[in-house]
Amino acid sequence: MNRVGILTVSDRSSRGERADESGPLLRQMVERRGWSVECASIAPDDSPSIQAVLIDWADKAHLDLVLTTGGTGFAPRDVTPEATRAVIERQAPGLAEAMRAASLLKTPHAMLSRAVCGIRGRTLIVNLPGSSKAARENLETILPALPHAIALLQESPDSERGHQIPSFKSQI
Amino acid sequence: MNRVGILTVSDRSSRGERADESGPLLRQMVERRGWSVECASIAPDDSPSIQAVLIDWADKAHLDLVLTTGGTGFAPRDVTPEATRAVIERQAPGLAEAMRAASLLKTPHAMLSRAVCGIRGRTLIVNLPGSSKAARENLETILPALPHAIALLQESPDSERGHQIPSFKSQI
Amino acid sequence: MNRVGILTVSDRSSRGERADESGPLLRQMVERRGWSVECASIAPDDSPSIQAVLIDWADKAHLDLVLTTGGTGFAPRDVTPEATRAVIERQAPGLAEAMRAASLLKTPHAMLSRAVCGIRGRTLIVNLPGSSKAARENLETILPALPHAIALLQESPDSERGHQIPSFKSQI
Repeated sequence: MNRVGILTVSDRSSRGERADESGPLLRQMVERRGWSVECASIAPDDSPSIQAVLIDWADKAHLDLVLTTGGTGFAPRDVTPEATRAVIERQAPGLAEAMRAASLLKTPHAMLSRAVCGIRGRTLIVNLPGSSKAARENLETILPALPHAIALLQESPDSERGHQIPSFKSQI
Repeated sequence: MNRVGILTVSDRSSRGERADESGPLLRQMVERRGWSVECASIAPDDSPSIQAVLIDWADKAHLDLVLTTGGTGFAPRDVTPEATRAVIERQAPGLAEAMRAASLLKTPHAMLSRAVCGIRGRTLIVNLPGSSKAARENLETILPALPHAIALLQESPDSERGHQIPSFKSQI
Repeated sequence: MNRVGILTVSDRSSRGERADESGPLLRQMVERRGWSVECASIAPDDSPSIQAVLIDWADKAHLDLVLTTGGTGFAPRDVTPEATRAVIERQAPGLAEAMRAASLLKTPHAMLSRAVCGIRGRTLIVNLPGSSKAARENLETILPALPHAIALLQESPDSERGHQIPSFKSQI
């Protein structure tokens, strides 16, 4: 069963001034698939705060998937993509491209999503927009590919792909 | 009224050896929308020259939107995307993806555009191709999203999105 | 006649445990177009090893085009995109976007390709997936644009684009 974290990024929600709609909605979608939401939190639109949560959930909680919602747009405080890019080790641009391409069929404003997707350790991190409607649609776009993505991340480097891993680093 | 800058990037045009067609065409398109072209210039295909103009127009002229035309292809001197990436603080990949996807319906050469879009301060910078036809088509693709993009960039961090901005940087 | 290199990236194939299917298939496609495969090799899924080959083929063999196959997915050992990004000087995101968009019409797993394309010197480097079927389909997508891409890369900076190149670097 895949273990998931949901991080709502919003100044207002983090101060309790606005109810978090997207977080609970994403939880519902994830649980309906039979996955388990192990971590859920709200962070302000502040890069170090967002980075700290993502690092913690990847390196300590060892989640399979982290969904963020919010902070992907053009407003001055929108820094979720930058925070995500700062902590991922490998980019997964195809997920973000697919989400934007699908949304673009509905509204030209889809091209304003600056969402980033990538991998830290064995954790896939996916930025979703802050609007609950857009977050739902974006997640629906990539859901068909996520089980395979997560399965590949869990692959053992020395069983699935070969018994001996040559240490070429020392040779070059 | 949105304040716009148009930067033509071309060795030949910068030396006066070739008339700049794309710059005046983009000005026409921008003014037809009721926006004001506050700055217009021609730079050679040289990264420091391009960067200097972009920084000046963002940090001193405080333009809302800067359109560049030229230098986005595969020729050895084409470095507009690199110069742009060097000065933007936040990437806006969806704009470049949307322009390429729309152009790809017309010609496979559209996939050779290396255009970059991003934000510096409150200025949106958009790379367009050098050919006036392609520049026009690319701008037409993103025009429907630009008013909202620019409005978001102008958003006041402490009015629109909440009264108190927590200074999390000092806490982490 | 374009000079091409084909690099298969696979731990197993590099150890002789699995036959390399994609490399020979890509060679066939390239030669059918009348291009010449000057270099072909197999590297393990190890970033320094991959980088060393790419640098050698670009800087010493001066190939026009390098196709890599393998290591573009989500498995922990998949690092071909990172190795490629480390050696390219200019990104060519439109090629990777076009390949993923075309593949996405066939399978949602296409969005898991992390392929990177870019330019080092006058060499275009293109990541293709490891599966021979996907590698073939991806190459077919971009083939129509490659002759023009390669021709542009060969362009002489001081003939095609102007006689005198201003040295703006020293002026700024």
